[in-house]
Amino acid sequence: MSEINGAQALIRTLVDCGVDTCFANPGTSEMHFVAALDDVPEMRGILALFEGVATGAADGYARMSDKPAATLLHLGPGLGNGLANLHNARKAKVPVVNIVGDHATYHAQYDAQLQSDIKTVARNVSGWIHTTERPEDTGADAAEAVAAASGPPGQVATLILPADACWLEGGIVAKPHSLTPRTQVDSELIETVAKHLLSGEPAMLFLGGLALRERGLAAAGRIAAATGVRLLGETFSTRVERGAGIQPIPKLPYFAEAATAELAGLRHLVLVDAKSPVSFFAYPGKPSDLVASGCEVHRLAVGGDDANAALEALAEAVGAPATCPTLAPAARPERPTGELTPDSIGQALGALFPENAIVSDESTTSGFGLAHHTAGAPPHDWLTLTGGAIGQGLPVATGAAVACPDRKVICLQADGSALYTIQALWTQAREGLDVTTVIFNNRSYAILNIELSRVGAKTGGTKAKEMLDLSRPNIDFVSIAQGLGVPATRATTAEEFTAQFERALATPGPALVEAMIPGIG
Amino acid sequence: MSEINGAQALIRTLVDCGVDTCFANPGTSEMHFVAALDDVPEMRGILALFEGVATGAADGYARMSDKPAATLLHLGPGLGNGLANLHNARKAKVPVVNIVGDHATYHAQYDAQLQSDIKTVARNVSGWIHTTERPEDTGADAAEAVAAASGPPGQVATLILPADACWLEGGIVAKPHSLTPRTQVDSELIETVAKHLLSGEPAMLFLGGLALRERGLAAAGRIAAATGVRLLGETFSTRVERGAGIQPIPKLPYFAEAATAELAGLRHLVLVDAKSPVSFFAYPGKPSDLVASGCEVHRLAVGGDDANAALEALAEAVGAPATCPTLAPAARPERPTGELTPDSIGQALGALFPENAIVSDESTTSGFGLAHHTAGAPPHDWLTLTGGAIGQGLPVATGAAVACPDRKVICLQADGSALYTIQALWTQAREGLDVTTVIFNNRSYAILNIELSRVGAKTGGTKAKEMLDLSRPNIDFVSIAQGLGVPATRATTAEEFTAQFERALATPGPALVEAMIPGIG
Repeated sequence: MSEINGAQALIRTLVDCGVDTCFANPGTSEMHFVAALDDVPEMRGILALFEGVATGAADGYARMSDKPAATLLHLGPGLGNGLANLHNARKAKVPVVNIVGDHATYHAQYDAQLQSDIKTVARNVSGWIHTTERPEDTGADAAEAVAAASGPPGQVATLILPADACWLEGGIVAKPHSLTPRTQVDSELIETVAKHLLSGEPAMLFLGGLALRERGLAAAGRIAAATGVRLLGETFSTRVERGAGIQPIPKLPYFAEAATAELAGLRHLVLVDAKSPVSFFAYPGKPSDLVASGCEVHRLAVGGDDANAALEALAEAVGAPATCPTLAPAARPERPTGELTPDSIGQALGALFPENAIVSDESTTSGFGLAHHTAGAPPHDWLTLTGGAIGQGLPVATGAAVACPDRKVICLQADGSALYTIQALWTQAREGLDVTTVIFNNRSYAILNIELSRVGAKTGGTKAKEMLDLSRPNIDFVSIAQGLGVPATRATTAEEFTAQFERALATPGPALVEAMIPGIG
Repeated sequence: MSEINGAQALIRTLVDCGVDTCFANPGTSEMHFVAALDDVPEMRGILALFEGVATGAADGYARMSDKPAATLLHLGPGLGNGLANLHNARKAKVPVVNIVGDHATYHAQYDAQLQSDIKTVARNVSGWIHTTERPEDTGADAAEAVAAASGPPGQVATLILPADACWLEGGIVAKPHSLTPRTQVDSELIETVAKHLLSGEPAMLFLGGLALRERGLAAAGRIAAATGVRLLGETFSTRVERGAGIQPIPKLPYFAEAATAELAGLRHLVLVDAKSPVSFFAYPGKPSDLVASGCEVHRLAVGGDDANAALEALAEAVGAPATCPTLAPAARPERPTGELTPDSIGQALGALFPENAIVSDESTTSGFGLAHHTAGAPPHDWLTLTGGAIGQGLPVATGAAVACPDRKVICLQADGSALYTIQALWTQAREGLDVTTVIFNNRSYAILNIELSRVGAKTGGTKAKEMLDLSRPNIDFVSIAQGLGVPATRATTAEEFTAQFERALATPGPALVEAMIPGIG
């Protein structure tokens, strides 16, 4: 290209920076970006029917590839539609280059229909925000956005892109920034923590983020073997590597009462790429801070620290064995029979998980028991709802499948939360993504049936109950999936589910199994 | 109720203020609000599966009832999901009491998973924002929110509602504020405008907002009869009353070239509850401001002005006849035959529109020709996409049907934009709403196929074309609708469409007709 426009320079720079995937839901103001996709063959554009699919897919992609994808959204309302899954991405600390098209710079003054304050909306989810004013700057701004997104830690970097900055000639391709390495944790802090762990006082390593990968877990297992420290993982983690041959890690329970019990009696809580544990929601008369009184909290690795190097250094400091002695043994449950329940589904998952699967888990109440059935399955990654904004499971599965085309993605999806971003199925069909979705259909917002009484609200009211009920009318996920181009079947017994799930796993491309399970509440 | 909690006081106050409908997608932090629905029987709670359905329904409800409904959204991500249709409501200047639940006040400090800066996100769409801190204040704040939402003009008033302000006892029911009347336009301004209209110089009344109701149109028709002033309506209006016996009003064309031609040669442009016309998007080398050079712009009625009283005063000032002589005659096209196209669909609509229908129109490219076929149909209301944030048609239809249970709602819905808020169909089924939806399925983002070349982008690229294409895989709206509980049929000829549409109109409750029309681009 001799003379190129701003959009061409932008996309060329993104590719040069390693960002070669763009999850897009464009509009008129993004048409020059879209046209420029054909000028940069290395950039893959993936269309989403809804922005929350695009942003959630970018999250899933980043979780599995450890690098950002780009999004392409249409002005403030498009960003609004993508906001919930950007919130989840922010809480997951994954890199996302979030590109929001805007009116041409000179058009903003006219307050046309789609005019809005994009920057204000973006602020809530973005660690970095910048508006590109001129075509000469698109390349440099893109390179800076990639660097900002990459961190460490990863974050959402929002680039606001006026249409004229794209369409005008004068684009300049920019060089990638060199990536910032993670910070090495101070050896004095490691020695201090080691001393506490060797003191014999009740202590726990609370692991999150990168520490839940195999490397960090192995080091944590070695530390536990040497010191007796307990290991616990955060409730909602970006990515856990687990299964046979990996150090297993229990999770902090979701409900605050159980979580408090889990943390009771500790003298030392060592945070490793995790926040100090707090209750997900507040409940009348119950504490939000879950740390036991008298427990000292030590921040071993935070933010951009190299958590896994810190764990390995800690292992050395406590004189840990060279290898982890407590890796999970290979073990699979029997295929289930009889009633179809979350538990029998868990058995089927454990019996059938393929090697190297990726699990996108938004099973909410149905998922409470899935972990133990799959603990000895072949190694797999488990991705969860990091920010509590439901509608994440299907998009994250979509992005993970794009990032890892050679691996099977299994999406464990509650019915209510599926319906926020159900459009993801179409993108899976369009791109031929190898995703098997399991819908846990209990015909209710079951979690709210539980929470309604837990928060101390009266539970008897008919109108209140109706607000938690999805059975009037029943939702037919088989029909919806087929309408969006994904083959689907319905299972009502454990045997049916197991057979259908096995067939879906054996067939390349997307498939959905609707699991009819008992209701709650 | 002797001792009541904050949620009970809030809902009681809303009802006392005339707000008796709440479109809700609640979560744990809203459970006390939900529980309190049973304590105030007059409040109707309507569940949506996605927040954009709730906010768009509140918009449609307000358009048809001229008073606000409440929403109930779940923290920042829920607000984010509802933002696009709140943007449309803002541009429509309709009243919405937008209630966003939040963590308990003391919980915010812990930065739990769902913590975010709700106020910042709300700012973009809200004319009024307030956070209720104490149960004693929920009633007073609710009354103030209703007053703020009601305007004039109407606006989105966002009330952020921490969970503990709901659950704590001490709620106090507040009295409704008296509503602010619209401002009467100064008689001097009316005389000035009258003088210009009587000058013989080329002039136009550009009508928007309330001026597009029957009353304003009748006055405008009288003024035109006396002065020869041309009448034009804004392109995207909140609500137009039209059909047989009502003064017809052409609309400013969507594309800037045609709009410029329409406004060429004017010396006086009189704005009546309308903004000065600007291009929807910016296009390279084309002006954004559509007003001809040398044309003087007069703001007859803006903001909270009483536009219709101003038009009537203007009619007197120009010596207009007492009745409007140019009302649309009753006329219906023949039933169409042959190929199914937007045009033949328009014919079927004109032939079959029932008395007093409400049309929610998000037909985008397919809708360009629908107006003339329905111009002589029985009187009806026509609601359009005021803010350009697609995904509005189905939710607005839903809310309009709730507001007007005795009227048939017809939703004219493009395929691409349907998929942002398709979950609205389920609420229609659940509530038995009398909505007939027509999906214009051309298997593409047709508007973008047009815009791609209009913005001057190269059009040849395969990847660019794919980003506008919805045919891989084709989307089956009949399956999706059935999956969401709405009966649906597919039409491929004009005869099939007419028969199916007629049957849907004759059957109470929701129905969907998928119209397979030729693609564009």
